[in-house]
Amino acid sequence: MGRIILVTGGARSGKSAIAEARALSLAPRAIYIATAEPRDAEMTARIAAHQARRGGNWRTHAEPLDLTGALAATDGQGPRLVDCLTLWLTNLMLGGYDWQAAGRALVAALPAQADPVIFVTNEVGAGIVPDNVLAREFRDAAGTLNQWVAAVADEVTLAVAGLPLKVK
Amino acid sequence: MGRIILVTGGARSGKSAIAEARALSLAPRAIYIATAEPRDAEMTARIAAHQARRGGNWRTHAEPLDLTGALAATDGQGPRLVDCLTLWLTNLMLGGYDWQAAGRALVAALPAQADPVIFVTNEVGAGIVPDNVLAREFRDAAGTLNQWVAAVADEVTLAVAGLPLKVK
Amino acid sequence: MGRIILVTGGARSGKSAIAEARALSLAPRAIYIATAEPRDAEMTARIAAHQARRGGNWRTHAEPLDLTGALAATDGQGPRLVDCLTLWLTNLMLGGYDWQAAGRALVAALPAQADPVIFVTNEVGAGIVPDNVLAREFRDAAGTLNQWVAAVADEVTLAVAGLPLKVK
Repeated sequence: MGRIILVTGGARSGKSAIAEARALSLAPRAIYIATAEPRDAEMTARIAAHQARRGGNWRTHAEPLDLTGALAATDGQGPRLVDCLTLWLTNLMLGGYDWQAAGRALVAALPAQADPVIFVTNEVGAGIVPDNVLAREFRDAAGTLNQWVAAVADEVTLAVAGLPLKVK
Repeated sequence: MGRIILVTGGARSGKSAIAEARALSLAPRAIYIATAEPRDAEMTARIAAHQARRGGNWRTHAEPLDLTGALAATDGQGPRLVDCLTLWLTNLMLGGYDWQAAGRALVAALPAQADPVIFVTNEVGAGIVPDNVLAREFRDAAGTLNQWVAAVADEVTLAVAGLPLKVK
Repeated sequence: MGRIILVTGGARSGKSAIAEARALSLAPRAIYIATAEPRDAEMTARIAAHQARRGGNWRTHAEPLDLTGALAATDGQGPRLVDCLTLWLTNLMLGGYDWQAAGRALVAALPAQADPVIFVTNEVGAGIVPDNVLAREFRDAAGTLNQWVAAVADEVTLAVAGLPLKVK
């Protein structure tokens, strides 16, 4: 069974770079499963900056919604880095999908993976309680999804100022 | 003297579940001191979800304000889990009470406890500085109260994605 | 070369007190480089509270913008505590300065320091994504600056409820 790894952290905590280094420590080439959709100029710039940092060792597979399908389609081709769970959750919620069903299906598919999967996710619950109910629902959903993946992960790392802090 | 334990973490970080497991590792039955008040439907649903997860090993003692009195009333009956300090602080501040005096009295009462006390609390200070002064005051008060309890605690744990990270 | 130390944490996580204790563990007297400007009553009160906690072992050097110059001016006089990087970044951004150039110059000046430098900074990226673009830009800049300093630091500590958690 492929190793399951979760790298979590706040915004600009260096979690993507830590996850990329971990993926390339497992194999010389890896697959980048991008959940981001370039909806506006700010997001497009973030995606471009991430792509520029990654070099030629990566093949990109874009999939905003069917993450379980993307893992099935890429298994056997090397380590997969999913960046990130929080954007996937955003896509599911904005699209009106059942994120709990999708999340449970994803977690259920992990034991069957032959190749490793490294998930990047965000810490979003350590600020003041948001004013609006949608932000609170998203925050709760993100924390729940992180717990589900962390429970079955072989490694969990918290990124702090670009450095990895071992949690599991 | 009963062991004093603090479990902190962001929203949906799994801190309550970690604290409950720790309480039941100390004794087969424990007391749940609930500081939450079911003020609206969202809070009522959260309380119900927490109660559903806890099983028959728990007796609930509801106390939104006089936490020091609740500890005195329940000492000698087994481990007490206080969930949570942040809601207690909210209740004190919304009610116009002197939270600093109440907090100091709580901390002063801890060395005399015969049975363990496990506190759940929230990390609320790791986001962007809030726009309004009341949110900043609450954030500062919550952080200060956490420091006071952590200073006298025998164990302090940070919950990350449902997993415990040992701080003290 | 003087030791480079970074202490990060959320609001009221006890990071300043941890950094001050670390500075005084290196020498009996130290220099406090204050980046705060007393722009309003709330900030003036925070500065006064910080000064009251520090005792007579400290000499204060106020510098809101030219941090690299402040380090050059104070080197050879003992450990320097910079409190804090996040306010320095705020001052740079509000003043219309190039924070990236200033940050890179600061990091480039660190290897030449004869005396230790202890930086205090804030975790600001672990809450919900802020509504407005300026807050997101600040959050990204703060996280980036923290990573730059952490990468060259000899020690990095995360403050949680007043307690130090070793990251590096």
